[in-house]
Amino acid sequence: MKLIRFQLPSAAPKPGVQRADGSRIDVSGFGEDYNEHFFGTDGPRRLAEWLTDHEENCPQISAEARLVAPCARPSKIVCVGMNYAAHAAETGAQPPTEPVIFMKATSAITGPYDPIVLPKDSTKTDWEVELAVVIGKRASYVTEEEAMDHVVGYVLHNDVSERAFQIERGGQWVKGKSADTFAPLGPWIATADEISDPHSLRLWLKVNDEKVQDSTTADFIFNLPQCISYISRFMTLLPGDVISTGTPSGVGLGMKPNRFLKAGDVVELGIDGLGTSRQEVKAYQKN
Amino acid sequence: MKLIRFQLPSAAPKPGVQRADGSRIDVSGFGEDYNEHFFGTDGPRRLAEWLTDHEENCPQISAEARLVAPCARPSKIVCVGMNYAAHAAETGAQPPTEPVIFMKATSAITGPYDPIVLPKDSTKTDWEVELAVVIGKRASYVTEEEAMDHVVGYVLHNDVSERAFQIERGGQWVKGKSADTFAPLGPWIATADEISDPHSLRLWLKVNDEKVQDSTTADFIFNLPQCISYISRFMTLLPGDVISTGTPSGVGLGMKPNRFLKAGDVVELGIDGLGTSRQEVKAYQKN
Repeated sequence: MKLIRFQLPSAAPKPGVQRADGSRIDVSGFGEDYNEHFFGTDGPRRLAEWLTDHEENCPQISAEARLVAPCARPSKIVCVGMNYAAHAAETGAQPPTEPVIFMKATSAITGPYDPIVLPKDSTKTDWEVELAVVIGKRASYVTEEEAMDHVVGYVLHNDVSERAFQIERGGQWVKGKSADTFAPLGPWIATADEISDPHSLRLWLKVNDEKVQDSTTADFIFNLPQCISYISRFMTLLPGDVISTGTPSGVGLGMKPNRFLKAGDVVELGIDGLGTSRQEVKAYQKN
Repeated sequence: MKLIRFQLPSAAPKPGVQRADGSRIDVSGFGEDYNEHFFGTDGPRRLAEWLTDHEENCPQISAEARLVAPCARPSKIVCVGMNYAAHAAETGAQPPTEPVIFMKATSAITGPYDPIVLPKDSTKTDWEVELAVVIGKRASYVTEEEAMDHVVGYVLHNDVSERAFQIERGGQWVKGKSADTFAPLGPWIATADEISDPHSLRLWLKVNDEKVQDSTTADFIFNLPQCISYISRFMTLLPGDVISTGTPSGVGLGMKPNRFLKAGDVVELGIDGLGTSRQEVKAYQKN
């Protein structure tokens, strides 16, 4: 199942489902948003059951609706850094011997087709296509063997990063990872049954129609069971939490000379089975 | 006003208020928990107004209730590192030239009198008494002059830290800051009107009745307006978000030889106007 969320002008976000034929239906009649409670109580299965009786009564989503991130705000976004050897190399780092993890403020979440807004004073805003995992079941000290039982689905993520804030401002990466609009998620969460092998997905990213990232999750340094098991030794993962699994080579920081986003640029990205997203880059403007 | 939250066996947490005479009343009749919506809609003022009519009908909180963290789960906990010169020195770091910031998973939040559970394989779990600020109004690119208008209250925080996870495991501090029970908050949130000068509060921490930290917020390297304004340039602070402002010297990592927590130790801490908390240290046990 493909879980989406949408918003009509002046209304709250609502849950929907994208069907196999690409049509989109409003499932707000089910009475739940895609949040910790939904994912923690076997929501996708319950929703699928509900749809067998109610699908024909679900309204089509209107064309004027905007797709928003397909998960309601999770308790956290945990990111794995340097998880592709070629990306570590391009940034001048050694491949890590155990996963590097960092957090991204959940206030950075935005929709898949919303603009990326350059922070005030930003000079080095960069792109990162990533496979993100959505947790379905509380995970604390899970083994690698158990880890995939805790995954409810997958989602496309652009881990937008301001490199000067991340690296040159003293201390922790979170500074460069957390600006508003720095976490475009979606278009949809594909439930785990839709992705037969998450370790062989092609992922790519284009800037102004030029392909700059093109790789496969087969090149992970640490695979999904390793990442999930590892993170769960340092913090408890809750249903709905998002784990972003790192980006392959081809980011602006790795180019010689460096290349960063400027207002007017268009970023498009995609992963097999998870659709594509598109963000136009805008300058910061005070509301 | 002193905002508390409490929990009876097998029940959900409820909001309460601690009165000037120390008695505690259940204000769940007000119909709101202390969350983003409450803080973002002038909740403390609305609650105070409601109490003028309803206080006499609010039940006393029973003695068997456990105090839980006085805020419902915030969107994020942002911590300022190395914000006291003597603490930076004891850990071998230079005082920072701009605030160091890092995040702590909100799943680490626990009550003021709950145990600290040592993570599995922990060898270096340490204490950190800190003044934490609760945000009352969305803050994005606020100036230092505006910053204090975005503060709704203050709360005592023990920023428990596993130093091996934080420093020796490759990468970012979040690994050592985010275990379950690593963020005891409370006993109460003091609304801003209760704390006439947050920059002259004594804060202290004892381990097994021995005072190990004893300082004052007058020794901040970066004061509250500087911290809030600074953080708001890298991420948007939402109502209810917690900013923890760093710990003074006297942590276990700064002692020669190092001293860390072990099962059976008792940590007590306090800040002027924010009460005291007490955590017993326990070994990890699988549920």
